[in-house]
Formats: sequence, C-alpha cells, structure tokens
Amino acid sequence: MKNENLHNDLILRAAKQQSVERTPVWFMRQAGRYLPEYREVRKKVDFLTLCKTPELAAEVTVQPVDLIGVDAAIIFSDILVIPEAMGMTLVIEENKGGPRFTDPVRSRHEIELLRDIEPADDLRYVHDAIKLTKKELDSRVPLIGFSGAPWTLLTYMVEGGGSKNFRHAKEMIFNNPQDAHALLERLAEIISKYLSAQINAGANVVQIFDTWGGILSPDAFEEFSLRYIRQIVEEIKRDDEPVIVFCKGCAHALDTMALLGADVIGLDWTFDIGKAREIVGGRTALQGNLDPSLLYSNPERIRHEVIEILEKYGHHRGHIFNLGHGVLPDVPVENVKAFVDAVKNESGKYHTE
Amino acid sequence: MKNENLHNDLILRAAKQQSVERTPVWFMRQAGRYLPEYREVRKKVDFLTLCKTPELAAEVTVQPVDLIGVDAAIIFSDILVIPEAMGMTLVIEENKGGPRFTDPVRSRHEIELLRDIEPADDLRYVHDAIKLTKKELDSRVPLIGFSGAPWTLLTYMVEGGGSKNFRHAKEMIFNNPQDAHALLERLAEIISKYLSAQINAGANVVQIFDTWGGILSPDAFEEFSLRYIRQIVEEIKRDDEPVIVFCKGCAHALDTMALLGADVIGLDWTFDIGKAREIVGGRTALQGNLDPSLLYSNPERIRHEVIEILEKYGHHRGHIFNLGHGVLPDVPVENVKAFVDAVKNESGKYHTE
Repeated sequence: MKNENLHNDLILRAAKQQSVERTPVWFMRQAGRYLPEYREVRKKVDFLTLCKTPELAAEVTVQPVDLIGVDAAIIFSDILVIPEAMGMTLVIEENKGGPRFTDPVRSRHEIELLRDIEPADDLRYVHDAIKLTKKELDSRVPLIGFSGAPWTLLTYMVEGGGSKNFRHAKEMIFNNPQDAHALLERLAEIISKYLSAQINAGANVVQIFDTWGGILSPDAFEEFSLRYIRQIVEEIKRDDEPVIVFCKGCAHALDTMALLGADVIGLDWTFDIGKAREIVGGRTALQGNLDPSLLYSNPERIRHEVIEILEKYGHHRGHIFNLGHGVLPDVPVENVKAFVDAVKNESGKYHTE
Repeated sequence: MKNENLHNDLILRAAKQQSVERTPVWFMRQAGRYLPEYREVRKKVDFLTLCKTPELAAEVTVQPVDLIGVDAAIIFSDILVIPEAMGMTLVIEENKGGPRFTDPVRSRHEIELLRDIEPADDLRYVHDAIKLTKKELDSRVPLIGFSGAPWTLLTYMVEGGGSKNFRHAKEMIFNNPQDAHALLERLAEIISKYLSAQINAGANVVQIFDTWGGILSPDAFEEFSLRYIRQIVEEIKRDDEPVIVFCKGCAHALDTMALLGADVIGLDWTFDIGKAREIVGGRTALQGNLDPSLLYSNPERIRHEVIEILEKYGHHRGHIFNLGHGVLPDVPVENVKAFVDAVKNESGKYHTE
C-alpha cells in the first residue's frame, strides 16, 4: 500500500469494478512517435538509450498526461529489455521492420547460456524511471508498469525479431516442447520479480502484454502462454495494485482468461466488447477496444465509434477505455486528442448509478 | 447438374452433411511450392504465366491428387486475377513480400476507371484450365473453384499489396465508406459471375477466401465483408455444388456466418473446432483446422494433432479436414503426406453410424 492520495484514481476504481463518474481512458504506446514532443526527445538519443535513461524515460512517460489528458501514465520502456538483460543483443531500428536480436536462441544449449537476472538490479533503470516518474506525476494520475508475457518474449528470442509464420518458435513448441517450457519457466520467474519490483518502485497498476498469444491454437495457447501468465498473476497479485492481462487475438479464450486471477482483461478491436462482458460476467473488468486505425479518420467519426463501444459495454462498472492495440505512429495528434476527449465527454451518462 | 459419377465424392457428401466412410481432406495452396514437381514447372514460367496457361495450370492442379492423395483438386490460380483483369498491373515476385499492384486504387475516380469485366470472357483462361483439369482428373475426385472475397480483394487493390496496418483500406472505409461500397458492390457482382462460370466450366465446389476479414471490428466486418459474401452466396447457390466460405480470424462471427447460406464454413487454427461445431449447430458443415506450421514438426506429432481435431469434432457429420490456412512453402513433403495419411487412417472410427 502506497499511502498515496491520487487526484485521479478512475482507472484503479474501474479496474476493481468500483463506481466511477466517467469511463477512464489511456492507450497503449501513448508515449510514442505520434507525439511531436516525443520525436524531439528521440532526436537526441536512440530508442534503447531512451529506455535506459530514467530522466528521459520519465519525461516522455509524462508527455501524454500533460498533452493528451489520459487518465494514467505507462512507464516508457520496451518488452525486450528482459531478454537484453539476459545477454541477448538487441537492435532497434525504427522504420526497419521493428526490433530484432542478432543472436536468436533456438537450442537447449543456447537457452542455458542465457544469464539469470535479478530484475531489481539488472533492470534497475526501469525502476529508477518509475520512481522519477512518480515524482513528476505528483499523484495526478496512476502509473502503469508492464512486461511482455513469457510466450511473446519467447517468440522474439527464438525468431530474433518479428515474423510472418513464426517458424522457429513453432518448431520449438512442436518438436522440442521441453526446451520451450524450460525457457518459459525462467521467463515467468523473471517477469514475476520484474513486475513486483515495478510495484515496489511505485507502479499503481501492471499490465502483461501477450502480443503473440493469438498465433497459437487454443490448446497450445493454454500450454505455452496462459499457464505462465496464470503463474505470474498468482505470484504478483496484491490488494491494491490491479493486474491487467492483454492478449491480441485471444478472445476465443475469454472464458478461461476470466479465471486467471487478473483484475482486467484487455481486448483487441476484433471482438464485440458487449459480448465479451457477457462472457466474463463480472469476473474481471475489461479494457478496450477501439480499432487503432480509426485514428486515421476524423474527430466526428472517432466520437461516433467511441459512443458505439460505450453503448455496447452499457451501464456497467469495470470498463477502462483503450485502443485495441498500440497507437499507430503516424496518426494525427488532433485525432488522438479527439479520441480521449470523446471518452471523457460521452461516458458520464453510463455511470449514473 | 453434371451427370458425373465421381469415384471419390467424400467432400461433396461431407459438405452436404451426408454420411461418409471417413473424413475427407484437402488443403489450401496444395498445388504449390512445397512440391518439387510444382517447382519444376515454375522453372519454366513465372507465376502469372502459369495461371494463364491452362495446360500448365491443369498440370499443377492435378499434382497433389497424384502425389499426396488429397480428396479434391483446387484449380491453380490466384485471387488477384480479378483486379488484374479490371486493368490493374499485378507484379508477383515470390520471396519478395508477396504480390502487389503498382497502381493502387484509392479514390472514387480511380475506382471508376477500373474496367467492367465479363469473367466468362476476361478470365476465360481460368475456365479453360478448369475444363482441362476435369478431363485429366477423369472423375477421380471433385474439383474446387475459388475466388477472393470482395473485402480481401479491396484490401489488395487499395493497399497495392500486403500490409501491416492496412492504413489505406481503413482510411477508405472510415473516411469514404461510399467509395468502399462502390468498389465492393462491383466486386461482388463480378465474383458472382466468375464463380458461376467456374461451376459451369466444371467446378464441383467453390470456395470464397476472405483472408483479411479478421482485421475488421465485428461491425465493420458485417458492413464491409459479410454482406457482400452473403450477396454472392445467394447469387451462386445451386443444389449440387457446395459453397465454402473461409475467413481468417473471423471465428467471433461464426454464429452469423452459419446463416450466410454457405454449405461449409472454413475455420483457421486459432479456434476450437468442437466449440465451433456447437456454435454452428448443424447449420453448416465445417472445414479445418490444423495449424499449418505443424507441418514443420514430424509425422508422429502431426498424427497426434490430427487425432485431437477429429476427437474435438467428434462423431458427427459435416467435417472436411484442412489446414487452418495455406500450406507453407517450405514444409517437408513427407510431413504433408503424413498429414493427409493421418486423416485417412484415423478418421474412419468417427463415422461408424
């Protein structure tokens, strides 16, 4: 317990399915390239240096709170800092097909060569950035910490980068499942410690991102992804800091995900949030789920779609508004602002209890 | 009615939910690069020339029937022959990020400049290839004809090729929906004529591929994809030639898709086929749904996963076995053969009525 009096705790209350005056809103990658002020900072340093420099990470983390008016900050970092700390060489060239590891891990031997890390030490720069951000936020809004899920980290570590068919990761789980489990087990333990340390450093909420859970069949998703997320949630769960689990393309498993122990399930834009609410049936809150490419359209259209989603969720507790995936880097800032304003202006009437 | 006595009509019977001795099997892209015999033919001609040369198209269409033992042939062609016939310039460079149009269509004016085509004339080479293939198949197995769905064709025509975020297609549907509808309306009409002509030429089954339906929110999927598929199905539906609708990432809409009027719904590998069967509840047959990347594993693992899917579908009529998406070009032929053999050897016990 942080003994902290947040001026805006809408997201914490929504996550716990408590009463709110309006639906809170934040969005994935809100500290990012769509903001000119972020691009200014990036002119000075590369992506990884930005992640590793607490003063700068804190600066860009706070930008969308000041500039867009979101109801939470999310610490600026990357899900790949864990494998990097474990000894892998991370190269991030934006506009060049995303981040990649020059030395992918594909055998049991290569897995065993990875360093065992202590997140509180080896990823201290993230925790320092959290502490600094908390100071700069000065209790205005909650701060969200995060990590990639074990399965998603495995795909990047084994593929070495983004992939179309995930051949190497699939070969590992189909041909050498015990190798995959050995790696996932280690990752789950590190991620639990990492997220706990983020909470200790001041994070009010943590989110686990499983970007690539949706490339698996339902059985493989349970075996190679969900069971490790469940393990992490059990490990890190506390009374005051809600846990959000976001998985892209996994709505087929909503019924199982409602039992993970997480407070909130994040939903991508390809599933009806009203149906999702019926499926989870109050067992968790829901976060989502505007199509991120809608921010290419115009304020009027955005407002219309925000209302559609509010209408689908209905007059119920437990909704945190978000995009269905990260904000795209080239959307106009005025549309992003229109999105956040629409949620703020239109959602009050759904909370008149 | 073709007055044709097929030696193997398992797929036709399964599509109509009639009794079969075992589960039939074919797979998407079965005439393709994983086969050395296909690559031999491709050494002589480029992809588009192969599509447009009925003798060669028929040759590669029959290859998987002879070499792998599938229960149907599917005519060798490409979904992009329609936009190409409408006047767009198609460049297909395999291993270079897939097919693309050098002149994407993004305005109402550009849409209006597209040629109105008569598929029976302008795509005569496809229908000639079908006639020739029918002769070579000599009633051994049914022949499947196919087309891309309007929405999927629109994405390629508007983006000019594959895409990560489908920015231009999304901008069209969000900012100028009437332009998108104008194009989709024209495509639906052409596709209806095209598939009817394929049936007239001898196709015993037709499949509509909506590869990119899954990038849309449920409401947008209904508005920009499903309604046009519904229109096509109504237009082409006959008593004897079953219609299959395959859409990647659309299992969320199974309940609606069961009402399309199609005989069979194709399922990708990310949804449980047992659950899908419960949802469609006998309103359609189902086709699917092994993860294509499983063919990177080994015969024993493949057999195990085939049995899992047979077990999930259970002792019911109306299952056509398939991969959940096209076969990957670099899987070992022996694994493909193991997949087909496993379905043939293991499925009999599910049809002992």
